[in-house]
Amino acid sequence: MRIALGIEYNGSQYCGWQSQPSGCGVQDRLETAIAAFMGAPDVRVPVVCAGRTDTGVHALLQVVHIDTEIVRDAISWVRGVNASLPADIRVIWSHRVSAEFHARFSAESRTYRYLLLNDAVEPAVMRGLVGWFHVPLNIAAMREAAEMLIGEHDFSAFRAAECQAKSPVKTLSAPRIDQSDKIIAFDFSANAFLHHMIRNIVGALVYVGAGRHSPEQFREIFESRNRCLAAPTFMADGLYLANIQYDAKFGIPSNTTPTKRFPF
Amino acid sequence: MRIALGIEYNGSQYCGWQSQPSGCGVQDRLETAIAAFMGAPDVRVPVVCAGRTDTGVHALLQVVHIDTEIVRDAISWVRGVNASLPADIRVIWSHRVSAEFHARFSAESRTYRYLLLNDAVEPAVMRGLVGWFHVPLNIAAMREAAEMLIGEHDFSAFRAAECQAKSPVKTLSAPRIDQSDKIIAFDFSANAFLHHMIRNIVGALVYVGAGRHSPEQFREIFESRNRCLAAPTFMADGLYLANIQYDAKFGIPSNTTPTKRFPF
Repeated sequence: MRIALGIEYNGSQYCGWQSQPSGCGVQDRLETAIAAFMGAPDVRVPVVCAGRTDTGVHALLQVVHIDTEIVRDAISWVRGVNASLPADIRVIWSHRVSAEFHARFSAESRTYRYLLLNDAVEPAVMRGLVGWFHVPLNIAAMREAAEMLIGEHDFSAFRAAECQAKSPVKTLSAPRIDQSDKIIAFDFSANAFLHHMIRNIVGALVYVGAGRHSPEQFREIFESRNRCLAAPTFMADGLYLANIQYDAKFGIPSNTTPTKRFPF
Repeated sequence: MRIALGIEYNGSQYCGWQSQPSGCGVQDRLETAIAAFMGAPDVRVPVVCAGRTDTGVHALLQVVHIDTEIVRDAISWVRGVNASLPADIRVIWSHRVSAEFHARFSAESRTYRYLLLNDAVEPAVMRGLVGWFHVPLNIAAMREAAEMLIGEHDFSAFRAAECQAKSPVKTLSAPRIDQSDKIIAFDFSANAFLHHMIRNIVGALVYVGAGRHSPEQFREIFESRNRCLAAPTFMADGLYLANIQYDAKFGIPSNTTPTKRFPF
């Protein structure tokens, strides 16, 4: 039987999603907690996720699946696994799915959100939960640049050297850039993302917003496919895996109204 | 010369605002940092605040004043003191004020905000930054009860035993209760607050929202002035000192549009 789980986590204390020999990945904690719930603490139950996140990156909604013979009702999965998880990782729902469902391959698109504090002084209350840039940013210029990313493109200019994706060609939906006082929210949805792609795009957009690059220079860098020409990778702090979209036939809950658990 | 400073802090790691022999108060860190900035690390510069916050309570805006002979421009105060503060406490502005200004006594009102996650599963991303209640709450019933608090009243039913206020009579403006998906925001403004008053009111409103008390029972408890009849004190996690209102003549910045630094 296949079970999908919705996971929320604060990534500040973890070395990213993926399991590591040192056990510092969110996946390590989740697999350990699932094994404890199943009453087989020495057995690692492999968990397949929708999108791997980097060190310090958070998830408003990560979706995973596991295969198991254990029969429990949905609420037992949630409560039982949470009982063995650290408090900064929570299972927020569980849903029995058909064997056809695959957390990664069935995902039609992923949405990432980047929250940026654009003010002279760093964040204190939201430290680790928002990125920060001190120079006032030109939103119109950033929007002009962001529009160039819409559609199917080779995103090599925003690809980390360590990226293991087979192809640098991805299809991005219209990015949103919304400002509310000193907070700027960037939303990106795509079929898939390259390693560091969002943080590299945010870094490049911040260069445009600060006037270091014109939108036209942004276009040249994007079209060059040359990572070395683009702005540095932006900090992980404000980055959230925000939502995963699946075909409605799977019945997977999404991080949207009325079930959204966040004030942003 | 008198200087007002705007302070933002994440209270999770502190035993509240007030200075303690162990040094665990936000005030301790601020006074130490100010002394370092003044080049007199052994001298404690007394800092007067607008509103003392409890253990684990945050401040979107705390206002303090100090008296000093040191002459520095506004941005130097901000950068200089921040250089010696832990990252979860920030000076966000400084403003030279007349000797007539007093951070506590000049404050016409204080605003507190309580953010509550109303969902079956605890918060992970916003842990420590939002309170939590698992049973779905009836917003209309909570609003009906909250309206009874408007105006000048004896708030003894919501006063902690350790409260040192001279009088339990305070004047509350119209509370706001706003729901956005699973997040409920409570906003309270008053000339002053009793010890634990907001957390006690939130606890009592949650009882009403969950159906444990009717709005009429809430009224009886409020009018009884008997703390022992009311619901327990609610957790500190989601509580923020959100704003301090002064006469405009002092020119004190406030935590409002367009300078608000928070996504909530």
